[in-house]
Amino acid sequence: MRIGILTSGGDCPGLNAVIRGVVLKGTEINNQEFVGFKGGWRGVVKSDLIELGRSNVRGISKEGGTILGTSRTNPFEGDGGPERILENMKREGIDAIIAIGGEGTLAAAKRLTDAGLKITGVPKTIDNDLDATDYTFGFDTAVQIATDAMDRLRTTGDAHSRCMVAEVMGRHVGWIALHSGMAAGAHAILIPEQKTTMSQIAEWVESANARGRSPLVVVAEGFVPGEADDAHSERGLDAFGRPRLGGIGERLAPMIEDMTGIETRATTLGHIQRGGVPSAYDRVLATRLGMAASDSVLEERWGQMVALRGTDIVHVGFEEALGRLKTVPQSRYDEAALLFG
Amino acid sequence: MRIGILTSGGDCPGLNAVIRGVVLKGTEINNQEFVGFKGGWRGVVKSDLIELGRSNVRGISKEGGTILGTSRTNPFEGDGGPERILENMKREGIDAIIAIGGEGTLAAAKRLTDAGLKITGVPKTIDNDLDATDYTFGFDTAVQIATDAMDRLRTTGDAHSRCMVAEVMGRHVGWIALHSGMAAGAHAILIPEQKTTMSQIAEWVESANARGRSPLVVVAEGFVPGEADDAHSERGLDAFGRPRLGGIGERLAPMIEDMTGIETRATTLGHIQRGGVPSAYDRVLATRLGMAASDSVLEERWGQMVALRGTDIVHVGFEEALGRLKTVPQSRYDEAALLFG
Amino acid sequence: MRIGILTSGGDCPGLNAVIRGVVLKGTEINNQEFVGFKGGWRGVVKSDLIELGRSNVRGISKEGGTILGTSRTNPFEGDGGPERILENMKREGIDAIIAIGGEGTLAAAKRLTDAGLKITGVPKTIDNDLDATDYTFGFDTAVQIATDAMDRLRTTGDAHSRCMVAEVMGRHVGWIALHSGMAAGAHAILIPEQKTTMSQIAEWVESANARGRSPLVVVAEGFVPGEADDAHSERGLDAFGRPRLGGIGERLAPMIEDMTGIETRATTLGHIQRGGVPSAYDRVLATRLGMAASDSVLEERWGQMVALRGTDIVHVGFEEALGRLKTVPQSRYDEAALLFG
Amino acid sequence: MRIGILTSGGDCPGLNAVIRGVVLKGTEINNQEFVGFKGGWRGVVKSDLIELGRSNVRGISKEGGTILGTSRTNPFEGDGGPERILENMKREGIDAIIAIGGEGTLAAAKRLTDAGLKITGVPKTIDNDLDATDYTFGFDTAVQIATDAMDRLRTTGDAHSRCMVAEVMGRHVGWIALHSGMAAGAHAILIPEQKTTMSQIAEWVESANARGRSPLVVVAEGFVPGEADDAHSERGLDAFGRPRLGGIGERLAPMIEDMTGIETRATTLGHIQRGGVPSAYDRVLATRLGMAASDSVLEERWGQMVALRGTDIVHVGFEEALGRLKTVPQSRYDEAALLFG
Repeated sequence: MRIGILTSGGDCPGLNAVIRGVVLKGTEINNQEFVGFKGGWRGVVKSDLIELGRSNVRGISKEGGTILGTSRTNPFEGDGGPERILENMKREGIDAIIAIGGEGTLAAAKRLTDAGLKITGVPKTIDNDLDATDYTFGFDTAVQIATDAMDRLRTTGDAHSRCMVAEVMGRHVGWIALHSGMAAGAHAILIPEQKTTMSQIAEWVESANARGRSPLVVVAEGFVPGEADDAHSERGLDAFGRPRLGGIGERLAPMIEDMTGIETRATTLGHIQRGGVPSAYDRVLATRLGMAASDSVLEERWGQMVALRGTDIVHVGFEEALGRLKTVPQSRYDEAALLFG
Repeated sequence: MRIGILTSGGDCPGLNAVIRGVVLKGTEINNQEFVGFKGGWRGVVKSDLIELGRSNVRGISKEGGTILGTSRTNPFEGDGGPERILENMKREGIDAIIAIGGEGTLAAAKRLTDAGLKITGVPKTIDNDLDATDYTFGFDTAVQIATDAMDRLRTTGDAHSRCMVAEVMGRHVGWIALHSGMAAGAHAILIPEQKTTMSQIAEWVESANARGRSPLVVVAEGFVPGEADDAHSERGLDAFGRPRLGGIGERLAPMIEDMTGIETRATTLGHIQRGGVPSAYDRVLATRLGMAASDSVLEERWGQMVALRGTDIVHVGFEEALGRLKTVPQSRYDEAALLFG
Repeated sequence: MRIGILTSGGDCPGLNAVIRGVVLKGTEINNQEFVGFKGGWRGVVKSDLIELGRSNVRGISKEGGTILGTSRTNPFEGDGGPERILENMKREGIDAIIAIGGEGTLAAAKRLTDAGLKITGVPKTIDNDLDATDYTFGFDTAVQIATDAMDRLRTTGDAHSRCMVAEVMGRHVGWIALHSGMAAGAHAILIPEQKTTMSQIAEWVESANARGRSPLVVVAEGFVPGEADDAHSERGLDAFGRPRLGGIGERLAPMIEDMTGIETRATTLGHIQRGGVPSAYDRVLATRLGMAASDSVLEERWGQMVALRGTDIVHVGFEEALGRLKTVPQSRYDEAALLFG
Repeated sequence: MRIGILTSGGDCPGLNAVIRGVVLKGTEINNQEFVGFKGGWRGVVKSDLIELGRSNVRGISKEGGTILGTSRTNPFEGDGGPERILENMKREGIDAIIAIGGEGTLAAAKRLTDAGLKITGVPKTIDNDLDATDYTFGFDTAVQIATDAMDRLRTTGDAHSRCMVAEVMGRHVGWIALHSGMAAGAHAILIPEQKTTMSQIAEWVESANARGRSPLVVVAEGFVPGEADDAHSERGLDAFGRPRLGGIGERLAPMIEDMTGIETRATTLGHIQRGGVPSAYDRVLATRLGMAASDSVLEERWGQMVALRGTDIVHVGFEEALGRLKTVPQSRYDEAALLFG
């Protein structure tokens, strides 16, 4: 059996470990052959591919990025669509596809599977926002990088008696903020799921300061302050009606300084959270998912993806994984919020 | 309510995060007061204790070690025993104990609970060998440290075309070896649960070498080679009948070199695996377990310990946690063994 | 002899190691006593101080920040000035001051010394821009943090075939950019000392891209593009004539994308470069400088600071250290520029 | 001009950065071509070589090990010697050799240069024991790894109230022990240059313990205790007259425990100190040395090696670099010893 692998969407530590896991299990045990599509779905549509043998994946599990490249191409746009892809697969002698990607990738894979293509999936989201799996690879690395950065920010906050604001990834969910904030002992964690008001934030900052602590505020990029504070929130608006420049962290800092009188500085961690050497946890998880994905093809689990439940790797249907973001539940937020202020 | 906390047994990254979680949840929400017993059960028996307020636990979740100190004292030895302990608790006005420790500590706690003492537990084992919880804090940090070390050893192996043997912790179970070995791409992982023969080890080493790789062999300290190779195994014996000096890693290296003709060097990671800054994963897990342990007291869960199941913190009876080591199951070993050789 | 210590200006890894070095050498060998002024010169002017014995400095050499706190207070402003300070010193029985700080601090120390005060200095600049010393503590840590971040950014650049722009500290000089850029294999390093044109930058980016590399551009915060490209440079201007928001990195990225057609993303490392655990190099350097500063007082070297020359700690007059920035010489830039494009 | 490069002796972080620096400077600026000899002098004698173009060195400066491999082969043994080497060079069209290695390599290079071969050198010693250069690449990385390990060991020491002994590299000189010990705040540093007595060591350990500290003893592998304590030293002897097994760290621990009554544990860091990702400092130094070595060939500096003096790269004759170990001077040891006990 000849199988094509693709990685799609944003970079995520562990992608190469998945690829290696698939190829080693497939070539050594499951009697499979592999090619890699270059640049995600673009490579599928354009038939841009490379051979993937054992020697191509040696030593890559500790490398960040993806040896196949990635893109945000949608397989239905332009020349794409199921017929074209099926045609390409036939011409190249490819029987099935393993798609490693996030919600968009899996949604596209579902539509293609519904149209008759043989596709199995591996979930990839650095934000940990897929409902059908306990954790996704890349998340642990991102949390560790963010935590290390916050450990550094705190000493500067202490030295200058400043409030430090750290903006982390998380457009729609606050998992990275929740975990890194708990790990670093944050005095406030602000996430998209919680419309915390500016006055609540200021209260936490002032309370920490009153206890002699230099406040650390962790904010997910998708956080929006609660409506109760329109007056303060407005200050972040661009006076000319244009979209406000800068992330939420940079907008929050002057507001906090304004409300509390405590000097406040923001740092946006940005891209460093999603690149580089994966943590041991992510390498193990990614390797296991990759090996299971090779089995998925053997077992003809089209329209399914591999997932982590407790310590087991399981298989779940695409439909179960899609359509619902795994947000931070109120109980987990309340648990963390005990430590605020 | 006034509660005593103790940490017992070997050092484990995350102990301080547990203590902080207990104290913050207890003082801020559960209306509890705390003292810390110094040096584990020794402090209980000798009534050696310190006050533990919010200010005592500030900033400690990222610190290795334990602010309470630890020891391997057994509370039943010497002056100990339930009566003495109860007497001490009454005199100090202590209503209950939170015992943070491994199997020995929890077994002692069970006996004391059976004798009427109010004790609740937090499991601590860097080896991850407790059956009633998915993971224990400290394990992730140990695996990461071992993996980082192996990443370094591999470049030296490659430069010199050597086989590198890395000995990691794991007297009775191979979890650290399994995870760090998978993460680092080991060509052989040797664990107490598997009586791998020397000829199998040599075969893996030679196979990796034949593919142009410098073999990495990861061995848990409790590994014993299979009996089929007595002849080779004997070489590790002390010629004078004394207990053999050096760990299994140092004994394996010359045997591998002897059998394969490939220059082989051993490194024993030792104590660096159990000290220092905990990983973000361990800080979050330990903090959550600590907060749940404060609730355990509130809910009078004597004779129970907190545990991780999937992403949830649950409560399980001591008897469920004891008596059975969580060994590496055959399926998990086979999964890893695909990558050997 | 009773000596006051102060740390002034921005946070810098190694400050605590200096303080520990001073106090240990002073108390154990040089028969000195110490107090710490809190919050830099503010503590001197306000007579806000704490006792500093051996027990106060234990374990601090690996801690970021400064146990004394810091500020940017000028000792001549407000209630300050030599008379007031001398008065405070007399009242507190303080014979001399060790001032740990950057150019501003040392300039103030010089004026106070000229007015008769007994002050000796320890140079502190994370930017490494003081002419009279080979290196300053904190610089090595900052370079290492920036290099680690760039190692991560490169894998994301490779995965997405993007150009990554990393903005590092360096308002007036480019040392951090030069060293971290060389270490990370940057395809362009942009520093305040070099008015590189946008077309040169675009040429390097395109050349790296043409060789199949994902370009990495490292830019010091104080870099200003050369005038030859006003047209392109203008695009970075705020259309409403206000000061441009965002740092140079964020302004450069769209310009590079515009000129080269290569998707480009910027990351501003910010405060994480100046906090947290110091590197071993900085701990050793800071400890040695601290011990030498205790000797400076013993030897009555008022108006002098300690400095590194080769592997030796030497003493130089304030006037030698001031007034001239240590910029990146053309030869060092040319050496690095060999690797560009 | 066509130049052969070789790396010889033990692994050392930065070797690849040197190779990359040579090749980039040589191919881009100095109009040179390169081949790499495989496995050090063995590749020279056996004419085992690979082409080395710009594409071969991309991305390698952050990789540990050496892409050329290394060995401890002596070029004069077996088939070797100047005639054979010259013959090989002529046949392969190689005009000159850049030898990257330690004292043995440079001594061999000197003999070959004296016999008429065109060889220039780059010093490599992780122990930093070459007299003609301030620092050698690899040393900073080794010190950082050792310091990180000691930071971890200290928390375990504190948790258990133990004395921790850390054995680091340094067969003939104590530079790694001195720097990592200072950085980690060791209570005793034991180096080959100083015949410290067991009673002095015990005194330091007891003094630290008396102040409530858990003693950290750092020992270089080549340390030998002073003769004044033969009685205690004898205990480390093998009772059967064989060479004592285990390193000095493992032999010291029971002696310290015996003399002080304080539980003592040893850790031997071993090979992890010389592999893996080089520090930023070492990458910059190695890159600069490599570029300078390309210039050395252009300038026909046969019999010379590149070296670091202050912040400058200079050229020195082999004879100046050889024959004299750069030991830790008494003044540097005394400076560190202030912190002992």
